[in-house]
Amino acid sequence: MPGDLGHTSTVCLGATLQAPVTWRSPDAHWQEPLRRVAVTGGTHGNEMSGVYLVRQWLRTPVDLQRPSFSAVPVLANPAATAVCRRYIGRDLNRTFTSTFLTSKATPDELYEVTRARELNHLLGPKNSSQAFDFILDLHNTTANMGTCFILNVTDTFAMHLCHYLQLQNSEPPSRVLVIEASEDTTFSVDSVAKHGMTVELGPQPQGVLRADLFSRMRSLVASVLDFIELFNQGAAFPAFEMEVYKFLGCMDFPRSEDGDLAGMVHPQLQDQDFEPVQPGAPIFQLFSGEDMLYEGDSTMYPLFINEAAYYEKNIAFMKSKKLTVSIPALPVLTPNPTPLT
Amino acid sequence: MPGDLGHTSTVCLGATLQAPVTWRSPDAHWQEPLRRVAVTGGTHGNEMSGVYLVRQWLRTPVDLQRPSFSAVPVLANPAATAVCRRYIGRDLNRTFTSTFLTSKATPDELYEVTRARELNHLLGPKNSSQAFDFILDLHNTTANMGTCFILNVTDTFAMHLCHYLQLQNSEPPSRVLVIEASEDTTFSVDSVAKHGMTVELGPQPQGVLRADLFSRMRSLVASVLDFIELFNQGAAFPAFEMEVYKFLGCMDFPRSEDGDLAGMVHPQLQDQDFEPVQPGAPIFQLFSGEDMLYEGDSTMYPLFINEAAYYEKNIAFMKSKKLTVSIPALPVLTPNPTPLT
Repeated sequence: MPGDLGHTSTVCLGATLQAPVTWRSPDAHWQEPLRRVAVTGGTHGNEMSGVYLVRQWLRTPVDLQRPSFSAVPVLANPAATAVCRRYIGRDLNRTFTSTFLTSKATPDELYEVTRARELNHLLGPKNSSQAFDFILDLHNTTANMGTCFILNVTDTFAMHLCHYLQLQNSEPPSRVLVIEASEDTTFSVDSVAKHGMTVELGPQPQGVLRADLFSRMRSLVASVLDFIELFNQGAAFPAFEMEVYKFLGCMDFPRSEDGDLAGMVHPQLQDQDFEPVQPGAPIFQLFSGEDMLYEGDSTMYPLFINEAAYYEKNIAFMKSKKLTVSIPALPVLTPNPTPLT
Repeated sequence: MPGDLGHTSTVCLGATLQAPVTWRSPDAHWQEPLRRVAVTGGTHGNEMSGVYLVRQWLRTPVDLQRPSFSAVPVLANPAATAVCRRYIGRDLNRTFTSTFLTSKATPDELYEVTRARELNHLLGPKNSSQAFDFILDLHNTTANMGTCFILNVTDTFAMHLCHYLQLQNSEPPSRVLVIEASEDTTFSVDSVAKHGMTVELGPQPQGVLRADLFSRMRSLVASVLDFIELFNQGAAFPAFEMEVYKFLGCMDFPRSEDGDLAGMVHPQLQDQDFEPVQPGAPIFQLFSGEDMLYEGDSTMYPLFINEAAYYEKNIAFMKSKKLTVSIPALPVLTPNPTPLT
């Protein structure tokens, strides 16, 4: 499930996302080649594509090498991976905040707090010039999300990467989910680096490794590294327009007074991720037999419908709107590859 | 995943299943109407159809009432259900053996050992005249198993029930998986009763409640109760022939020397539960890229392909053969309903 969506309750990231999108001008991070790149898997220990890809790369790191850099494979949450659970004490991918990262270690702190500090030491420190240039974080979802890239709207480099991936891997189609978060409000593992992105592949049950998704993720990672290599070699990436889904908030399940589920995702909504939902369309089926209808006032695009890991977060699905964004050109670097030693 | 398949290692139940099937003559259990019936859900705490159906029936037990009997809904593993895991200490559905059920309680025993003893007290004692007449145990699987009934070949009553369910619920089709086990070797919750059966619906990820499968399971349970009512009322159930899948054994994943996975279920096998596999067909894709082929000497029918809960049991899929069996008529009871009080 998503690696970098900022919510642990039903309405997330709040009203700022209702405001018109403002696309920041490119920052200074990518005026230099990207040399320090990490690919993280097992951030959630029961999302198996990334877990087994990272294990393979740890044995055969040559797959992550390119002429100008070599990506580092990182098994982000080894303890959760060992027991095939999302996390041990708390969701690691919600733990990369300044509060946790700067806290003083204590003997009884949760495992993922310790681990986030370790990863920040390895790949960061977050928001510093020493941080890695790029982190690609690999996830699966039980929802019918297909191939989805999740990134911060302010990361122009990552937006170009998505565009490249869509062109290189047109079948099956991939979608782009953008969020808007400042450096102060990010909390995911990829937020530790100067640039970053989450890849979500689904549907895949927790604890299951499907060969088709494994192959698709391996191919996508290869394309990500190819793109970084092209950028490092001085390739030009002109401005373009792109269709994206912008995260708006979350919708909880209908619940009884005691907080238990009072219904389920409606059969007409199940598996319909990225498909438009009109006001008045059925979104839940109550155990009593009644339908609950969508009460919004405009077309909504649901995402992560019925994701297993979100029941505990009170999320039945996420809401987004579809829009077209204009992305400026990337600066062209002067070719200056550093051969691998 | 299955509730009553006798294996915790790669080859299960052994060579006796290779022998010709011998269909025992009906035993004396069902010379009387069935009055004491239980429907169990949450035997595995992350299989959500049964968990939420039982929760509903505990609120509205009228759905489980018929003129001659009233079925009891039982949340079999409440502690595992509360944390949405298959089990806490050990698989409850492997714990109904005489060894566990007759062991003396100790303060440090595993939760499921205590719970199995409690359920045996509530629904059994197993192999006694006081035991419940019928237990229907509700399960989900992450595999593409559709609707599957699992039962002991010696339970003629349950075989008739399956036949009835297939006629009453023809779409989507349902399959029957038969095992052969003596009273001494059974270990599942439904083995506590005089008759019993497991219903498996899939695919559904662990921790996810799909409305379509919830509705299908609710409908199947209603048909089960209808069948018992018809039997109690003296309906005739003549002999018939039926296509079944007979459990033969299990196949582990390819593994490296350290025991970790060396490959995945082959894309050509994934989701092909109940479809014939010929010798020489690819069944695994190694991480190295090679295919592994099926080395059996005859057609095999794979089941529970890539079930999440079976990774820890070293099972990539189960093997079965398809055959037609002849089931004798059920005795016709003299109508003598006992109205509900």
